[in-house]
Amino acid sequence: MQITYVILNGVQIPEHEAQLSINDLAIVRGYGIFDYFKTVQGTPLFLEDNLDRFYNSARLMDLPVNYSRTEIKSMIEQLMLANNMPDSGIKILLTGGYSPDGYSIAEPNLIISQHPITRDDLAENKGIKLLPFEYHRPFSQVKSIDYVMGIQALKKAKEAGANDVVYVQNGLLSECPRANFFLVSDDGTLLTAGDDVLQGITRMKILEVAKEHFKIEVRDISLEDLKNASEAFISSTTKNITPVTEVLGHKEFGAGAGTVTKQLQVLLNQLMYELETSE
Amino acid sequence: MQITYVILNGVQIPEHEAQLSINDLAIVRGYGIFDYFKTVQGTPLFLEDNLDRFYNSARLMDLPVNYSRTEIKSMIEQLMLANNMPDSGIKILLTGGYSPDGYSIAEPNLIISQHPITRDDLAENKGIKLLPFEYHRPFSQVKSIDYVMGIQALKKAKEAGANDVVYVQNGLLSECPRANFFLVSDDGTLLTAGDDVLQGITRMKILEVAKEHFKIEVRDISLEDLKNASEAFISSTTKNITPVTEVLGHKEFGAGAGTVTKQLQVLLNQLMYELETSE
Repeated sequence: MQITYVILNGVQIPEHEAQLSINDLAIVRGYGIFDYFKTVQGTPLFLEDNLDRFYNSARLMDLPVNYSRTEIKSMIEQLMLANNMPDSGIKILLTGGYSPDGYSIAEPNLIISQHPITRDDLAENKGIKLLPFEYHRPFSQVKSIDYVMGIQALKKAKEAGANDVVYVQNGLLSECPRANFFLVSDDGTLLTAGDDVLQGITRMKILEVAKEHFKIEVRDISLEDLKNASEAFISSTTKNITPVTEVLGHKEFGAGAGTVTKQLQVLLNQLMYELETSE
Repeated sequence: MQITYVILNGVQIPEHEAQLSINDLAIVRGYGIFDYFKTVQGTPLFLEDNLDRFYNSARLMDLPVNYSRTEIKSMIEQLMLANNMPDSGIKILLTGGYSPDGYSIAEPNLIISQHPITRDDLAENKGIKLLPFEYHRPFSQVKSIDYVMGIQALKKAKEAGANDVVYVQNGLLSECPRANFFLVSDDGTLLTAGDDVLQGITRMKILEVAKEHFKIEVRDISLEDLKNASEAFISSTTKNITPVTEVLGHKEFGAGAGTVTKQLQVLLNQLMYELETSE
């Protein structure tokens, strides 16, 4: 069996040996941030954008990053060489560290790990159902490790026959626990929530590729918008663009991806999977 | 130097060797629960109440506890013998475990650890200042490890010259990040929030000892109640009854503990520290 390696505080070790002391603030207080990007045929995708967000999350949560951008990139390169896993997801996780009093932020631990990525082609074609769920992520711009609500919400979604939830508060749809949420209105305008959601890198890339083809509105999304929409989809690093076929209790869209969603899937796939051959 | 031991999944090991794999759901998703009680002169205080709450938190968060009450109590006894730390705080922490997909709940890891406890007599006499902070804890009955907001809020409190925050939402005061909140109204009635806060064991004991001496109302506390109150205090396992001298921007109480607060401190101390000699 091939050993998978991780890099823990700059040191490459086998993943099964990588451990943190039980005093880490992630374990005692759920305190940490991370970022996640994929590699396609051995090339990290949108790494600079992910590193921007990683450093921003750390700053917003007062976690010092004791490694420069160059150092982190070189660790990522080292890890990719060691693991030889060309198509993968790479996670950079920064915890609150070994806190002397079990509450204040200490010297963070940095873990870079690599995982096989499985693209869910079926969902990308067929689509998923979402259950509206009353919640709004605090520190919405931070990619925090805090997924307590997301994990509990997924359970409710499954019980209701949905694949996941979309968070709603005060009649506004914000995001899914691990994905951004988009609507396509009847006149073909692309809608997605603005600053008060996770600034998804896939979301950003969709907005980039879409702007030459569609009208775009980045603003609060209401239940009224949902009612009047003709297509919906979610976006994330692992889910790419996955159509939403139904928001339970509110709106049924057709099966599979609508016209605009399909076109965006093509544009995004060109950007992501043909980067290497596009020159 | 004396070695401090912990019990990790039933096995006693030195604390500095106790580690969890980086795949634990506490580290990757901030998912776990705990409980905390103190020992006074070698005797655990209110252990049964804490175990009730521990099993309840685990159940509410869908974490299976693979140890019976008797087994956990026997581990606690073993730990107390090993550490010889008569006055201490003991934490029972249950994490989400090593999740195969990094999201679903797995076989939890159970960590029992013991820590020296330092009673803050100064604060118990002098009192503390609280900053109102807009938030409401989700899963309020669960003693979750999720303290992201509490840690960030404490920073805001310090910046404002307060010692900690009290959470407020929709004009209702619920609790502090690590303590319950009480008011004493002008007519000597004791007020504290009801079901939608952490069911503090110290809070419960205060209500028990208070009921023969004071009128008690367990209900939502409004800013209006705060305005009309003559005393305020917080309660927790480590802070016991600590008077609140000011809620910033809303109310200044006198310095130190008021008459009712003092009387409750005496009653609680009798219950906690004279248990052994009360027969």
